[in-house]
Amino acid sequence: MSAAEIAALLDAIQFDATGLVPVIAQAKDGGEVLMMAWMNRDAVAETLTTSRVCYWSRSRQSLWRKGETSGQVQHLIELRLDCDGDCLLAVVEQEGVACHTGRRSCFFNRAATDKGTWDITSEPLISPQDLYKHGASH
Amino acid sequence: MSAAEIAALLDAIQFDATGLVPVIAQAKDGGEVLMMAWMNRDAVAETLTTSRVCYWSRSRQSLWRKGETSGQVQHLIELRLDCDGDCLLAVVEQEGVACHTGRRSCFFNRAATDKGTWDITSEPLISPQDLYKHGASH
Repeated sequence: MSAAEIAALLDAIQFDATGLVPVIAQAKDGGEVLMMAWMNRDAVAETLTTSRVCYWSRSRQSLWRKGETSGQVQHLIELRLDCDGDCLLAVVEQEGVACHTGRRSCFFNRAATDKGTWDITSEPLISPQDLYKHGASH
Repeated sequence: MSAAEIAALLDAIQFDATGLVPVIAQAKDGGEVLMMAWMNRDAVAETLTTSRVCYWSRSRQSLWRKGETSGQVQHLIELRLDCDGDCLLAVVEQEGVACHTGRRSCFFNRAATDKGTWDITSEPLISPQDLYKHGASH
């Protein structure tokens, strides 16, 4: 993809006042919503170029190549933009788990409206210690 | 659900500096991601209380009871909170279509990386004129 083609795709995206756009990651197989994070222009461009999902980390203020330290890479299958251009949907093949807690999806808290509590609906598949240990695959 | 139970659920949500939290709406059947919008505390409380999804409209700066003018109501099946508490996932039964263009989902633009264009992947099921005509069901 040429720089002009990437620029044409980026120009349709309405980045917010801080230069970011929210991105929903959904598993290609099964359709599970895995996580929500943010991208800036560079992150979208890198994601489209490499087909590996790259977010912008608001806490670290740097590009966040998903799986770089944990090994839990997201391979981009397709990128979708919503009707008013201010939200992206990344359909991905998730290696391992998406959540830093070791769970497949980040959305593991379910409102129990009869109790007023958030119930945990899934357990870690990998311990966070194993996920981020020194020497983990990058 | 008592006010105290609702407050307990709300207290776990990390609203942003403007008092909002992003919300992903996903269809219960099929798992399609329908839209992304925002809620403030009142919108979350109303959604939990009524089981009809209520967002906060940033453009109108008011509560936005989904389907109030279009009739395309979202019935809440379950509400989920992500690992760091700053994004909600609403699993819903969608009456009709979610998108104001008359499409089932708002995410109908797909990046065609070989061409540098956003390709439209679905057509309206209802015309926007019919969706918002005077006298539409509220």
